[in-house]
Amino acid sequence: MSIKTPFVAVDGIIQLFDSNENFQGIVLIERKNPPLGLAIPGGFVEIGESVENALVREMKEETDLDVEIIRLLGVYSDPKRDPRFHTVSIAFVCKAYGSPKAQSDAKEVRVFKIEDIPFDKLVFDHAKILRDYLMR
Amino acid sequence: MSIKTPFVAVDGIIQLFDSNENFQGIVLIERKNPPLGLAIPGGFVEIGESVENALVREMKEETDLDVEIIRLLGVYSDPKRDPRFHTVSIAFVCKAYGSPKAQSDAKEVRVFKIEDIPFDKLVFDHAKILRDYLMR
Repeated sequence: MSIKTPFVAVDGIIQLFDSNENFQGIVLIERKNPPLGLAIPGGFVEIGESVENALVREMKEETDLDVEIIRLLGVYSDPKRDPRFHTVSIAFVCKAYGSPKAQSDAKEVRVFKIEDIPFDKLVFDHAKILRDYLMR
Repeated sequence: MSIKTPFVAVDGIIQLFDSNENFQGIVLIERKNPPLGLAIPGGFVEIGESVENALVREMKEETDLDVEIIRLLGVYSDPKRDPRFHTVSIAFVCKAYGSPKAQSDAKEVRVFKIEDIPFDKLVFDHAKILRDYLMR
């Protein structure tokens, strides 16, 4: 049986809080690999791991944060959303505490207040994903 | 770049109505291929199609019904949910009118009232998916 399906990835909208539960902002990364630009942290799901485990792993790898998943936001699968190849992304809303640090997969990690998110700098369909998040 | 991710599939909980908007039941199929048993209709997403288009195509191919998507139910990705290989399934709730007919991919199509769904006959994690649907 020869099955070919799109790649599966996860993306996480990380709501960052301080230890007093004060909202600090949304965590975005400056991508190290093409397409270059600002992105919601995320990555590919590995064979053998659930999408939830992939999300927690990828958030740690890119931002050093230990996230808690709050809810599934949506599934983004337009064949043109990733300029490299067809990738289906499962987007989650999550929560974390502490200070993010850019890890191997990210050039830089930044925290944005809702009103300061630079929608025009976002790669893929991440502006759409963030708008969907803000409108629910 | 060598990327390997799980396969992506879609599954649809079809709420069937008659032309007077009377609920007829949930559409399930008797699988033609292993694992044999009763299943929510579904299938693999093709490269180049969105998960929503894959859902509409697969429902037509298996039941002959033209479905309308109502909402995303969830993403099911336990590596052990499919005994053959790791498949991530995106499950939708949808709606259709008319009479289902078993098409090429299904041996038989059946319509069950909620209280008559034979949970113990369902393959994969479809009993769990149906329970999640009924509990929301």
